[in-house]
Amino acid sequence: MAELFHFPLCPFSRRIRLALVEIGYEVELTEERPWDRRQDFLVLNPAGSVPVLVENSGQIVAGVQALGEYLDELAASKSARRLIPGQVHARAEVRRLVEWFDVKFHTEVTWPIVHEKVDKRFMAIDAGGGGPNMDAVRAGRHNVRHHLQYIAYLTEQRRWLAGEDLSHADLAAAAHLSCIDFVGDVPWDEAPGAKQWYARIKSRPAFRPLLADKMRGLTPPETYADLDF
Amino acid sequence: MAELFHFPLCPFSRRIRLALVEIGYEVELTEERPWDRRQDFLVLNPAGSVPVLVENSGQIVAGVQALGEYLDELAASKSARRLIPGQVHARAEVRRLVEWFDVKFHTEVTWPIVHEKVDKRFMAIDAGGGGPNMDAVRAGRHNVRHHLQYIAYLTEQRRWLAGEDLSHADLAAAAHLSCIDFVGDVPWDEAPGAKQWYARIKSRPAFRPLLADKMRGLTPPETYADLDF
Repeated sequence: MAELFHFPLCPFSRRIRLALVEIGYEVELTEERPWDRRQDFLVLNPAGSVPVLVENSGQIVAGVQALGEYLDELAASKSARRLIPGQVHARAEVRRLVEWFDVKFHTEVTWPIVHEKVDKRFMAIDAGGGGPNMDAVRAGRHNVRHHLQYIAYLTEQRRWLAGEDLSHADLAAAAHLSCIDFVGDVPWDEAPGAKQWYARIKSRPAFRPLLADKMRGLTPPETYADLDF
Repeated sequence: MAELFHFPLCPFSRRIRLALVEIGYEVELTEERPWDRRQDFLVLNPAGSVPVLVENSGQIVAGVQALGEYLDELAASKSARRLIPGQVHARAEVRRLVEWFDVKFHTEVTWPIVHEKVDKRFMAIDAGGGGPNMDAVRAGRHNVRHHLQYIAYLTEQRRWLAGEDLSHADLAAAAHLSCIDFVGDVPWDEAPGAKQWYARIKSRPAFRPLLADKMRGLTPPETYADLDF
């Protein structure tokens, strides 16, 4: 079976795990802590980042950008469901929103919250580990509100974030938000439209394995895995 | 004519400018300073980032990830030269390296150097403008050496960074390095292999407009536009 190297609260790993289930590509999951910079892992991906897919053939596909596009090309070749659907401009809209979440949301929300509250618990002190910088966490909690409003705005006009079909844009947004939700920092009740969209994506079978993730020493709020949160 | 909103020393804008010339898509360039957060520009791209393409039809393609893929799909439809060439795994390799430069190189080198030495000159003080943080600049100068070594390593095995053909991986790498070169911070003589690769890409007609860019108050070193640097 193919093997996916991932970290449970890495939003990029989460997006690819969701995509793999959505297109019906079964993999074995191997947890990797990218900050350990394990030599055997650096051979697979010199950038040292997750996710990385190692196929049965030994072929390696490294990085979230490569994997997102690769899985869409694979789906096309098997006539499976596309996660970058439609014609060129519709596909550009999916990628605009993927960049929104993987760059803008990541910089403004995911990194300040997840790096401080999660990653640093597992990192050695001399590698930057330790207690969270609460100024960064507070900035992330402030910023997430704008993104929830934007999701609500998009879903007023479209069934899914990039159009009428589920796409990598939804998976990226949900992957990031689910990491923030794990540590209890998404104020869902302030953005009912975003909450409704998230309830729909959270109910998909692809989401179940993410909701079952365990992290030593961290307990997500009860609502995290609750489909009626 | 289509219009590309760009900033001269934005590496993402530079990559798309290079790609447009390489595939023969003529555009009018409009300079945009993304930190101004101009209202009319935010309508085109709510993320507020460059590059953004506005086509004759009025269709908008926003963001470097969307534009890189869009131009490849456009080239495919016109049987023009592909910048994400080859079969699925070769294409994944192009995208792995694009992510290397747009994320890793950008975080470790471009942002610490260009944001400090260039962007902050043009930003209002209350928006974060002012003199450069030289600790950040020094970190960027230190980090660029590892990336030059990696480029040299890749080009020992392949004609271009991702394989036998020029691709978005080369354009991304050259776009970032050209921004650092503009402010004189690339130690070319320490990495002859990387220098030879850069000399080849710098000699392409697509590179000429980048080498002619002017920035008020900033003079690039003489070697910047010299093809025999």
